[in-house]
Amino acid sequence: MLAQSLFSFVAGAAGDWHIARMNVICGQGLPAARSLSMVRGDASAGRDGAVWVLRGVTSNLRYTTGAERTALVSRQAGLGRSEARCAALIPISKNEKWWQLAQDDRRRIFEETSHHIAIGYRYLPAIARQLHHCRDLGEPFDFLTWFEYDASDEAAFDELVARLRATEEWRYIDREVDIRLMRDGKAE
Amino acid sequence: MLAQSLFSFVAGAAGDWHIARMNVICGQGLPAARSLSMVRGDASAGRDGAVWVLRGVTSNLRYTTGAERTALVSRQAGLGRSEARCAALIPISKNEKWWQLAQDDRRRIFEETSHHIAIGYRYLPAIARQLHHCRDLGEPFDFLTWFEYDASDEAAFDELVARLRATEEWRYIDREVDIRLMRDGKAE
Repeated sequence: MLAQSLFSFVAGAAGDWHIARMNVICGQGLPAARSLSMVRGDASAGRDGAVWVLRGVTSNLRYTTGAERTALVSRQAGLGRSEARCAALIPISKNEKWWQLAQDDRRRIFEETSHHIAIGYRYLPAIARQLHHCRDLGEPFDFLTWFEYDASDEAAFDELVARLRATEEWRYIDREVDIRLMRDGKAE
Repeated sequence: MLAQSLFSFVAGAAGDWHIARMNVICGQGLPAARSLSMVRGDASAGRDGAVWVLRGVTSNLRYTTGAERTALVSRQAGLGRSEARCAALIPISKNEKWWQLAQDDRRRIFEETSHHIAIGYRYLPAIARQLHHCRDLGEPFDFLTWFEYDASDEAAFDELVARLRATEEWRYIDREVDIRLMRDGKAE
């Protein structure tokens, strides 16, 4: 069982990104580590010095409409921009009440009430973003969202996550860890 | 990585269900086997005599609205009825064009055009059904649907799958195997 779209987030003593800080927003935290790498595939076994590994898959859209996607695609930036020397990994889980909701009820809370897509759209292209799903993999979190941005956009990123955390959707979140990262390596 | 909701379908020389026949509807088939068992958890390794193992997870609803769910729940039967001595396992995969569609476009094809939920509803409670998702697990199929029914309802089941195969939704299906099963064991 190994999806092509599987990514692993490996925390340990060395890695591509330095963990600047890790804040537990709600629920159980994660063990402290110095560095983190995002790697393609399953890095759960035989990774020397890994403190923890979280895995998730990129997948089909779950709520986004065609019109919303067109708007997002016209404005968003990809990962890996050289100027984006800051990143965040935000693992979250939603409670059983959320997962028991029907599709239309989840969509209504997600967008019509909480404006999840609309809020994210306002911060494009500065904040690049990639969602990974992991609930159906039996992982400890339901989603791992990865963000990349320039250091000058950190206040905007703080505002983005604060807005999302104030929504009705976030009442269904029972575990969230906010991990802030800086690109490791020599200054250019 | 082992979701609580993971089920394995194990085909081999012995099992709870006798494989009466296996028809390849489209795409690649599966190796022939005598019997099949549905077991909770991951039975992929160390299963003596397994010819193949397919795995999937039960998960949250992807298209069904609250109103549709209420109607289904009021009428459907659970698995494991003693009179349901026939079963079918129908593994399917959808093509990339389907998975690239936005949520509203997939919902429209699934129900407003193809009436997937409405067609299934007509055959309740006779045909009991459980869907397992596996695309994000990296499995060879996207879905494994399990059906149970009385032998006297086999014609109705044939009609149900024929109606679904005639829909627009089914144009996106590029692999489908129809496996018919009879409960193994002594006659009562």
